[in-house]
Amino acid sequence: MKTTGYALGDIASRFDLELRGDAQILIHGVATLANAGPGEIGFLSNPRYRSQLGETRATAVILRADDASAYANACLIAHDPYVGFARVGSLFERTPAPVVGVHASAVIAAGATIADSASIGPFCVVEADAHVGDGAIIGAHCIVGPRCRVGAQSRLIARVTLVQDVAIGRRVLVHPGAVIGADGFGLAFEKDHWIKVPQLGGVVIGDDCEIGANTTIDRGALGDTVLGDDVRLDNQIQIAHNVTIGSHTAMAGCSAVAGSTTIGQYCMIGGSAGILGHLTIADRVTVHAMSLVTHSIREPGEYTSGTPIQPNRQWRRNAARFKHLDAIARRVDAIEKEKK
Amino acid sequence: MKTTGYALGDIASRFDLELRGDAQILIHGVATLANAGPGEIGFLSNPRYRSQLGETRATAVILRADDASAYANACLIAHDPYVGFARVGSLFERTPAPVVGVHASAVIAAGATIADSASIGPFCVVEADAHVGDGAIIGAHCIVGPRCRVGAQSRLIARVTLVQDVAIGRRVLVHPGAVIGADGFGLAFEKDHWIKVPQLGGVVIGDDCEIGANTTIDRGALGDTVLGDDVRLDNQIQIAHNVTIGSHTAMAGCSAVAGSTTIGQYCMIGGSAGILGHLTIADRVTVHAMSLVTHSIREPGEYTSGTPIQPNRQWRRNAARFKHLDAIARRVDAIEKEKK
Amino acid sequence: MKTTGYALGDIASRFDLELRGDAQILIHGVATLANAGPGEIGFLSNPRYRSQLGETRATAVILRADDASAYANACLIAHDPYVGFARVGSLFERTPAPVVGVHASAVIAAGATIADSASIGPFCVVEADAHVGDGAIIGAHCIVGPRCRVGAQSRLIARVTLVQDVAIGRRVLVHPGAVIGADGFGLAFEKDHWIKVPQLGGVVIGDDCEIGANTTIDRGALGDTVLGDDVRLDNQIQIAHNVTIGSHTAMAGCSAVAGSTTIGQYCMIGGSAGILGHLTIADRVTVHAMSLVTHSIREPGEYTSGTPIQPNRQWRRNAARFKHLDAIARRVDAIEKEKK
Repeated sequence: MKTTGYALGDIASRFDLELRGDAQILIHGVATLANAGPGEIGFLSNPRYRSQLGETRATAVILRADDASAYANACLIAHDPYVGFARVGSLFERTPAPVVGVHASAVIAAGATIADSASIGPFCVVEADAHVGDGAIIGAHCIVGPRCRVGAQSRLIARVTLVQDVAIGRRVLVHPGAVIGADGFGLAFEKDHWIKVPQLGGVVIGDDCEIGANTTIDRGALGDTVLGDDVRLDNQIQIAHNVTIGSHTAMAGCSAVAGSTTIGQYCMIGGSAGILGHLTIADRVTVHAMSLVTHSIREPGEYTSGTPIQPNRQWRRNAARFKHLDAIARRVDAIEKEKK
Repeated sequence: MKTTGYALGDIASRFDLELRGDAQILIHGVATLANAGPGEIGFLSNPRYRSQLGETRATAVILRADDASAYANACLIAHDPYVGFARVGSLFERTPAPVVGVHASAVIAAGATIADSASIGPFCVVEADAHVGDGAIIGAHCIVGPRCRVGAQSRLIARVTLVQDVAIGRRVLVHPGAVIGADGFGLAFEKDHWIKVPQLGGVVIGDDCEIGANTTIDRGALGDTVLGDDVRLDNQIQIAHNVTIGSHTAMAGCSAVAGSTTIGQYCMIGGSAGILGHLTIADRVTVHAMSLVTHSIREPGEYTSGTPIQPNRQWRRNAARFKHLDAIARRVDAIEKEKK
Repeated sequence: MKTTGYALGDIASRFDLELRGDAQILIHGVATLANAGPGEIGFLSNPRYRSQLGETRATAVILRADDASAYANACLIAHDPYVGFARVGSLFERTPAPVVGVHASAVIAAGATIADSASIGPFCVVEADAHVGDGAIIGAHCIVGPRCRVGAQSRLIARVTLVQDVAIGRRVLVHPGAVIGADGFGLAFEKDHWIKVPQLGGVVIGDDCEIGANTTIDRGALGDTVLGDDVRLDNQIQIAHNVTIGSHTAMAGCSAVAGSTTIGQYCMIGGSAGILGHLTIADRVTVHAMSLVTHSIREPGEYTSGTPIQPNRQWRRNAARFKHLDAIARRVDAIEKEKK
C-alpha cells in the first residue's frame, strides 16, 4: 500500500484533524498498530489495543485526545479515530480510475442515454430507455436493463445486473454479482400446479447506498422494492419483492428479508438473520446473527433467537429434552400444584 | 404500468371470468386495492383487505362472487381472484420481446444447434453439442456449456451459466446469476489432504420450472441432479449434487439441500431452511423458515426447528438455561421420584 | 459417460491398485453399484452397500481386500475404495480441454502478463498488472482484475470475478459466479450516517484449493484475507475481510465467516453454519450444519447449536416454553430449596 505519500500536515488539514508533530512527515500508507511499519499511519480506536501504542512502528497514529497524552510521537487527534482512519485510508485506495467514455465492445441500445462524463466498461450491455448519470462508472460485464437509471457518481464495480426498472441514486456502490430488479417470487396455486404471478414493479435505491457481492434485490410485484439513503448491504443478502428498508440501516452477509416487509431506519441486521414477510420492524432495531424474526417488532432494541453452541455431546442431550420441553414444564406445574 | 389498455370485456373473455359492468371500460394496468387509480384493475383475494373494497379508486376489481354482491362497480368474478390477478396481470408485463436470431457478438461453437426461432443475446457463449430449442430466449451474457439443452420457449433472462451436461425442459424461466451444472462438492480424504471426487453427472430440469437469481444447482457425481416439472426455486438457493426435487415443489430464498436428498412433490420449503444429505422427504411436506431437517420425513405436514425470537436480555437468560436443559430435566425426574 | 475405454490392467497400474481378474477388460465409465451396467466400474466404500455387491451388473468393482474375498468377478483392491474411485473416475471427465491462447474477443490490458501455455476464453477481461501463470485456464466471461495473479495450472471455470489484489496459488479450481477480492463490509458510524471504511488489502489463496459457485471472498481492510493450501469451499459461502482459513479445512454450502476470524487446519464447517467475527477456531474443529459459533473454540471436537426439527404443533408448544425457560428453571430451584 505504498504511494508517493502525503505530508502529515496536509492530511491533518484535509480531514480537519489536529496535528501533533512534524507536518512534513511523509505518510505512504495505513496499517494496524500491530502491523504498521515506517511511513505508515496507524489508528487507535478500540481501547483493547491501547497497549500496542507503546510498541507500534507506525510513523504516526490517529487517536483520541485522551490517548495522545500517553503517546510521544507524531499523531492526529480525532474525535472518533475510526472515522478518522476511514477518511485518511481513502487516500490510499488503489482501485484504478476508469476511462471516461464507452468501451468499444459495449452494446448500447438506441434510446439509452449516457452522460458524457460516465464510464462504460468492456462487454457492458445498456438497454433501451436506460440512463447512466454524470460521472457514473459502469464496470466490465455490467448489464443496465430496460428503463434502469444509474445516478450521478454511482459505481457498479463489475458484472452487476440491473434487470429492469431499477432506479439507483447518487454515489451508490454496487459490487460484482449483485442482481437487482429480477422478478420477485410470486406464485398462485391453481388446482394442481403453480402459475406465475407477474412481477410488474421496480426497485428504487436511494443515495449513498452500498450493495454487496452476489446480493439480490427483487423488483416489486405491484409497486416497488425500496431502499432509503445510506442503506448498507453486505454480500449474499436476499431482499424480496416489495420490501422497504429505511435509511441508514445496515445488514450483514447472508441475511434475508421476505416479501413486503418494512424495516425501519438505523436498524442493524446480523449475518445470516432472516425476517419473514409482511412484517414491520421499528427504527433502531438490532437483530442478532442467524436470528429469525417471525413477528413485527415495535420497540427499538436487540432481538435474538436460537440456542448457544455447545460440544455436540452436551448439545444432543439438551436438544433431546427440548423436544419434550412442554411436557417438562407441565410436570413442574403439577409438582407445584400438588404442594399447595 | 400504463399501456394502451384492454377492454374489460375482452379481459373477461380471454381469461374466462364473469363480467359485471361495462365491457367497454379500458384497463391500463393492475394495482393493489389501496394503490389503484383510475384505469387500473385491483383484486380482492385475502379477506383481510375486504374493507378496502369500499374505498378503492380502481376502475374494476377481480373478486369472488361472494364479495361481488357488496361491490357496486365493474368487476370480474373469479373462483380464485389471486389466480385471476396473475392471469390478468400478465397482460401488463413490460419485459421487452427479444430479437429472434443470434446477436453478432455471441460466440457459438461449431456443433452447437440453435433453433431458427430462438434468440441469443449479446456476449452469449454457446458451446459444443449444446442445443437451444424453438422460441427459447437466451439473454445477454449467458453461457450454454457443452452438451447443455435448453427446451422450447424457455428463457434465460441474462447472465445465466449452464456449465455442462444440463438439460432444461420447456417454458422454464431462469433468472440472472444462476449457475446450473457446476461440479458438486465431492471430496475424499487421503491421509492428510483432500482429493477431488470427479463429478461426472448432469442436471435435468423438467418443464415449467422457475430458477431464481444467483441460485446454484450442482451436477451429479454419478447420475444426475433432477428437478421435476413445475418446481419453483427462489433466489440464492443451493441444490447439491444428486438431489431430486419432485414436481410442483416450491422453495423460498436462501434454502439449501445437501447431496443425494430426495424431496417429494408439492413440498414447500421455507426461506433459509436447510435439508441435510441422503434424506427422503415425503410429498406435501412443509418446512418452516430457517428450520434444519436432519432426518427423513415420512409424513406430510408442517415441520419446524429453532426458537422464537425475543428481546436479547430475555433470550440470554433462557439460552443460558438451554445449555443445562438435560440437567434441569433430571432434577425434575428426581423431584418426582422422591415423592413416590 | 462412455469413452473409448481403458483396460482394467492399465487402470490398476496407473493408480497403483491391486488387480484381480482379466487385465484386458475394457472399462468405459464409472457408476454406483446399483446403477452400473456392463463396461462400467463400481466401488464399494460404505459397508452399508455391501449387499449390492452380489447384484451389481458392474464389469469390475473397486473395493477393500476384506470385501474382495466375497466377490467373484474382476476387481481392484484399494486401501480406501472411495479414494480409488476418485482417482479412477477422473479418467472419465468430459470437461473439454480448452484451447491454449487468448480468445480474440478477450480484452487484455497493457501490462498484463499471460503465460504462453495459458488459455483465456471469450469475453474475458484481464486488467493491468494481472498475471496468468503456466497452463492456467481462464474460462469464458472471467475478470482478472488489477494486480491479480492466477497460479500455474489453476482453472477459473467461467464467469469468475477476481476484483483486485487477489493472488491464487497453483492447481486451484474456481467455479462460476465466485467473486473474490470485493471490498469487505467496513463501516464507521459518524453522528447520523455511515461512512465507508476503505478496503485496502487483498486475498491470498494457497495451492490446491477449490472455491464453489457464487461463493464470495472479500479482500482485507488492512492486510489480506488468507486461505491456506487445500482449502475446500462449497457453493454460496461468504468469507468476510481478514478471515484466515487453515490448510485442509472444508466448508459446506452457504456457510459464512465474519470478519477477522481465524479458522484452524483440518476443520469441517457444516452447511449454512455461521461463525462470528474476531474469533479463533482451533484445528480439527467440526461445526454442524446451521450452527452459529459465537465464541472462540479452543478444543478440537464437534460443536452444535439449534434445536431438533419436529412437527410444527409439537414444536410450537416447546418453543413457547423456551421463552420462559429461565423462569421454569427458577421454579425447579425453588421446589428443591423448599424441600431442604
